[in-house]
Amino acid sequence: MSRLVMKFGGTSVGDVERIARVARLVAAERKPGRGLAVVVSAMAGETDRLVALARAAAGEGGNKAPLAGDDFNDEYDVVVASGEQATTGLLALALRRIGVPARSWQNWQIPFRTDAAHSKARVLDVETEALAASIDAGCVAIIPGFQGVTAEGRISTLGRGGSDTSAVAVAAALGAERCDIYTDVDGVYTTDPRIVPKARRLDKICYEEMLEMASLGAKVLQTRSVELAFARRVPVRVLSSFAEPGAANPGTLLCPEDQIVEKQIVSGIAYSRDEAKISLLGVADRPGAAAEIFTKLADANINVDMIVQTEARQAGRQNMLFTCPDRDAQRASETIAEAREQIGVEEIHLRRDVAKVSVIGIGMRSQAGVARTMFAALAQKGVNIEAIATSEIKISVLIDAAYTELAVRALHSAYGLDVA
Amino acid sequence: MSRLVMKFGGTSVGDVERIARVARLVAAERKPGRGLAVVVSAMAGETDRLVALARAAAGEGGNKAPLAGDDFNDEYDVVVASGEQATTGLLALALRRIGVPARSWQNWQIPFRTDAAHSKARVLDVETEALAASIDAGCVAIIPGFQGVTAEGRISTLGRGGSDTSAVAVAAALGAERCDIYTDVDGVYTTDPRIVPKARRLDKICYEEMLEMASLGAKVLQTRSVELAFARRVPVRVLSSFAEPGAANPGTLLCPEDQIVEKQIVSGIAYSRDEAKISLLGVADRPGAAAEIFTKLADANINVDMIVQTEARQAGRQNMLFTCPDRDAQRASETIAEAREQIGVEEIHLRRDVAKVSVIGIGMRSQAGVARTMFAALAQKGVNIEAIATSEIKISVLIDAAYTELAVRALHSAYGLDVA
Repeated sequence: MSRLVMKFGGTSVGDVERIARVARLVAAERKPGRGLAVVVSAMAGETDRLVALARAAAGEGGNKAPLAGDDFNDEYDVVVASGEQATTGLLALALRRIGVPARSWQNWQIPFRTDAAHSKARVLDVETEALAASIDAGCVAIIPGFQGVTAEGRISTLGRGGSDTSAVAVAAALGAERCDIYTDVDGVYTTDPRIVPKARRLDKICYEEMLEMASLGAKVLQTRSVELAFARRVPVRVLSSFAEPGAANPGTLLCPEDQIVEKQIVSGIAYSRDEAKISLLGVADRPGAAAEIFTKLADANINVDMIVQTEARQAGRQNMLFTCPDRDAQRASETIAEAREQIGVEEIHLRRDVAKVSVIGIGMRSQAGVARTMFAALAQKGVNIEAIATSEIKISVLIDAAYTELAVRALHSAYGLDVA
Repeated sequence: MSRLVMKFGGTSVGDVERIARVARLVAAERKPGRGLAVVVSAMAGETDRLVALARAAAGEGGNKAPLAGDDFNDEYDVVVASGEQATTGLLALALRRIGVPARSWQNWQIPFRTDAAHSKARVLDVETEALAASIDAGCVAIIPGFQGVTAEGRISTLGRGGSDTSAVAVAAALGAERCDIYTDVDGVYTTDPRIVPKARRLDKICYEEMLEMASLGAKVLQTRSVELAFARRVPVRVLSSFAEPGAANPGTLLCPEDQIVEKQIVSGIAYSRDEAKISLLGVADRPGAAAEIFTKLADANINVDMIVQTEARQAGRQNMLFTCPDRDAQRASETIAEAREQIGVEEIHLRRDVAKVSVIGIGMRSQAGVARTMFAALAQKGVNIEAIATSEIKISVLIDAAYTELAVRALHSAYGLDVA
């Protein structure tokens, strides 16, 4: 008996016609000896509506501080989780309507257990005895994504976008052959096709590369779901929910590195435009300086991305730069300025309108010259590099944001990624 | 420790402002030594929206017959039950917002068990151990009305209007001092105040009277909830959800007959205008004739109300009449006409535009002259009586619908019910 898990997001189940279409996509995957489980989101717009209701009930917009934390999160989960419940029943009906046996499984019925961190719960385990027996008997299981049940028997949610994680967790627990995530794109591309029309859909990508792609703004899959798939070695396929049921729809397969035989040196070019660069010049070269800086920023709830440090010309000084989302840039700069003397920073420069462009590839581990190709390609187009950071499978540069498209296109060609 | 159950319908929780108002009404009932449970409906409009979605998913309006029965009802319940779940979380938040400890209890968490007759389930039992401990500790329990969980652990619903029944079942299980049902009227009246401005709110009414009032169209409480309250002797109070929190809001108390010391002979005048009268003349006087007639009508899904039979002038014949909702009248008449020879019916007369007017009172059991007063009052106003039916605590007459208001007012005065 093999098992397949399929996941559909809010847009795919946005109205009854789309739910009927999802039912046909599910029906097309049925075959003898294969059990199916389908994880669904709330209908598009429902979660936003429910979140707004919960916040209003908690006093948002009133003249007192609204409820927050433990006073809010458990019942917020109760309100918001109702959205997916409705979708499960609707899809079960739509499947029966076309002759496919199906039933909904709420998380407490499975049970699909999470910890008690309401509104941002983590999956603990998924009981499969009853669920597996039902799907192996040919009845499609419809499961609400994004939620679970705590040890105390209360409703939890995994946080926005958690449905991908739900699907991967169900697939891992069921020992599924694959977890198919249906999205509004038909796979993972070598780069953003809106910028590079010659971008290619990747047939395969390994988990590590996908993690770098996702966190760099190629928002096809929620990062947590990729991490979980990586940890549990669940093959995940990203494919289009707009394809005709039964039609070719290969998508992109996320798999362990060892299943990718012909490794590309570079698999993709990612970029992020929402960046600001803050340069700290003449930072006191003493243990704890960096810790002080980033503790201040963390306390101010500023999400720091790239951090680069180099020696300065003056003895006993370092130069440092970091990036953060553009909306936090002013605040980040002020936060450091307030503690400038305490930390020992001579100058603070804020530069907005920068972009981060990265080349990603598992193959670069074993290849020399990857960085050289990157810098040469950028130089040839007259793009100045403001900072460089590298990891094992990624090289990122900061550039003037006005050059983003130019740089991405140049790199896409330079690494031979353009479609023939 | 005493316990109080409160119930709020869809209009009372129709938006976040109204939910905040309900929270204040609940807060006003808190006092030391009293635990509170609150049963809520879905926000006004939500159930209709969800029902429409479920029907559409099941194929209503398509060119094949939509799903029905067992193929439909279980998942219909899953879809529709999500509405109340959202309200429970919202009210819990609104209560915490004003400093009242509260949490939602879904039916499967309690558990609140029903049979497996999806979409029209009956309550089996309500487990109270955890629930009672929580409310006795001062945490208000918010429970979704209209639904439960089956022995198989699936979601069930009690049918439209089932929230009143949920509230009474919770009150019975908790041994509550009372079940307060908040509605858009401030109690049960001696008759419809839109017809008789001098109608009086009753302080008390016994279950039997309320049952007659409700089934006769005084639609304050769902009949099933009154039956359950009667069977379990739960004191139920009907009161206004529009009163200011903390303000006087006595409502009407439903209680056992023996708690009503000063019995009125007649407690109220009910009427129903949506009636048609079908007279069957010269019905064969043989065993089984009535059974045949009403089996045919039941098979045609026609809801028969009043049935009166008398001897006819011809030997071996009876005259019979029955009433049904006006919309079914033509069909009812045709149904009998088709089987006319088989049953043995000489003439069928259909009369639309009739109304049923009833006087109801537990006191009439021990009082002579109640019927005489009724007939005299109607005669005095020139109202012709087309049929009479009586039960132990009710006398109903059929009259020309045009005289409905006149008859109701005359009877209200004749039995001394007018407000001084």
